[in-house]
Amino acid sequence: MNHSFPTLRPMQIYPYDHLYQFTQSVFKAIGCSDVHAATATQTLLSADMRGIDSHGVARLTGYVRLWEAGRVNATPDIKIVHETPSTAVVDGDAGLGLVVAPFAMQVAIDKARQAGTGWVSVRNSNHFGIAGYHAMMALEQDMIGMAMTNASALVAPTFSIERMLGTNPIAVAIPAGEEPPFVADLATTTAANGKLEILQRKNADTPLGWVQDKDGQASTDANILKKQGALLPLGSDRDHGSHKGYALGSVVDIFSAVLSGASYGPWVPPFPAYVAMPENMPGKGLGHFFGAMRVDAFRPASEFKEHMDNWIQRFRTAKPAPGHEKVLIPGDPEREMEQVRKTAGIPLVDSVAKELQELGTRFSLVL
Amino acid sequence: MNHSFPTLRPMQIYPYDHLYQFTQSVFKAIGCSDVHAATATQTLLSADMRGIDSHGVARLTGYVRLWEAGRVNATPDIKIVHETPSTAVVDGDAGLGLVVAPFAMQVAIDKARQAGTGWVSVRNSNHFGIAGYHAMMALEQDMIGMAMTNASALVAPTFSIERMLGTNPIAVAIPAGEEPPFVADLATTTAANGKLEILQRKNADTPLGWVQDKDGQASTDANILKKQGALLPLGSDRDHGSHKGYALGSVVDIFSAVLSGASYGPWVPPFPAYVAMPENMPGKGLGHFFGAMRVDAFRPASEFKEHMDNWIQRFRTAKPAPGHEKVLIPGDPEREMEQVRKTAGIPLVDSVAKELQELGTRFSLVL
Repeated sequence: MNHSFPTLRPMQIYPYDHLYQFTQSVFKAIGCSDVHAATATQTLLSADMRGIDSHGVARLTGYVRLWEAGRVNATPDIKIVHETPSTAVVDGDAGLGLVVAPFAMQVAIDKARQAGTGWVSVRNSNHFGIAGYHAMMALEQDMIGMAMTNASALVAPTFSIERMLGTNPIAVAIPAGEEPPFVADLATTTAANGKLEILQRKNADTPLGWVQDKDGQASTDANILKKQGALLPLGSDRDHGSHKGYALGSVVDIFSAVLSGASYGPWVPPFPAYVAMPENMPGKGLGHFFGAMRVDAFRPASEFKEHMDNWIQRFRTAKPAPGHEKVLIPGDPEREMEQVRKTAGIPLVDSVAKELQELGTRFSLVL
Repeated sequence: MNHSFPTLRPMQIYPYDHLYQFTQSVFKAIGCSDVHAATATQTLLSADMRGIDSHGVARLTGYVRLWEAGRVNATPDIKIVHETPSTAVVDGDAGLGLVVAPFAMQVAIDKARQAGTGWVSVRNSNHFGIAGYHAMMALEQDMIGMAMTNASALVAPTFSIERMLGTNPIAVAIPAGEEPPFVADLATTTAANGKLEILQRKNADTPLGWVQDKDGQASTDANILKKQGALLPLGSDRDHGSHKGYALGSVVDIFSAVLSGASYGPWVPPFPAYVAMPENMPGKGLGHFFGAMRVDAFRPASEFKEHMDNWIQRFRTAKPAPGHEKVLIPGDPEREMEQVRKTAGIPLVDSVAKELQELGTRFSLVL
């Protein structure tokens, strides 16, 4: 939450419950069932609550546009199309990823209860919000949760100038005892697209190493994606390990889509409804991949949690570098933001609030 | 293989079979059974064959020193201590990781045959060579293989000056049809320790972003680890995503050691036998984590492989950046090196050859 540019980024604050009611009503208005509308709303707003504003209610209009374009099915028949004791493939029937993903993660959890672990690859889905939300569903079951998804191509592999991969995030949620859980949720790029959007609003440049221009030259232009530039894989360049970020993003793509029968690589359907669909798609829709591992499939849960507490406490008290107060545990900043926003509400930049008001007018709803 | 510094890095070439016989004899000389000596040799030399010279026969003397120090058990009773249909915990009985890891990976493969996937966490082990070798064991079974391990602490988390994590690699091997398999094998740091060693021999500096000094300041000193400096997580600094590399390395540590009961974080036993063991270790030895997923637990193997071929061909023909010939698929450079060394032999730098000759003298073996 950055208050230091009030004229460039004015904000309005909305209580969670208020945004919840509004968002749920929008999903109902496009034809979602009560249950699906509630699931989609909870998934979407978890991003706003955790401070990942680019993936929350700011995308609601985008989801509605996908529905208008006939790319999102508001009444999907989501089902398991293949399974073994520890695996399943789910077909999302072109539903909202916000609904398909929790369904598939629940299948993974149910499999893990029986077989120790559960692994579910999903085809024919759409954008699923933040990966961390789905991974965290496992926590209350004393399970480790994993979630990943492919996304439309914005990232150039090492040595390439062609956009071949999405920001393809990986989330891992691990339960602890007294300590809050470990929750990693990371795009396999140096910087996620949402960070470019923030810089665009400020008319600011990116650091070197986030993006390249259409010729593969280093760039600091936050608008470079509109000029055929590309995001760089985690590591930025070959000398700093970009081939590792490229490999990780590729694994996400293959687990999410080649295992399930979704579209992959440069053929992943775009989020903006005005962008034409790729030609000759090799599969159906976006793909996701979920995992759940019962902690006590390895050792007693109480023992595991005791050691996780020890792990977390030891890392949190690692000697900080000068100028830094402490070492963070993955998930710390998002959890702290959630605490703040629970009481203080969710700030929306004016452009997002305005877009939502227009959406409300259309469906006779008041933001 | 760098021939451009002949005076700094003179080399001798040894045929694979020759090094195999020698290495196997050394393992037998310290008391390994014939079967264990063969397994350990094959695992170790796979690194030399794939061009990862830092993890191959160059480490043989180090393994022997660990045995001398009583930290490696040459006749381990490796066993499953806990299991479910899709999981197991293996206790390596302080054996060579080169032997323990293939055992555990085989358990994962066997589980996958029955349950669709298999996941094995390992405690009480030692360094296991290259992660990629173990992951690749799954390929001939039409399975996806995964391997990771923790290692002694050389890496400072973001915002820290304390070494808390090892280079904690992740390997993922994915079968294809006509195309060779996709094999990613990456340290979760910007650069692996082996790359520093190469620069040390050349008296060369590292690029900025690989290491920091003891005060957390940027450094280009390839010898900084001897001066209380640290390796940096993949991403190098916070602006370039080092918190992501730190999170990935942490996941490897937790899956490998907190799940199994191995030692973790700063308590992981060191590879050099002359470095004292950490005090108050929270678990036994090093930890590893292995996974195997039957491809046909998701979709028919023939379909999967056809799409993997398509994926690989599309990425390999992605538009290259000026000055680059083509985009590489993870595993390409190592496979090409293996082809070369199969016929040309394995080059050893003089210092390594000399160390091995001394080892040979001691056991009445000729290199």
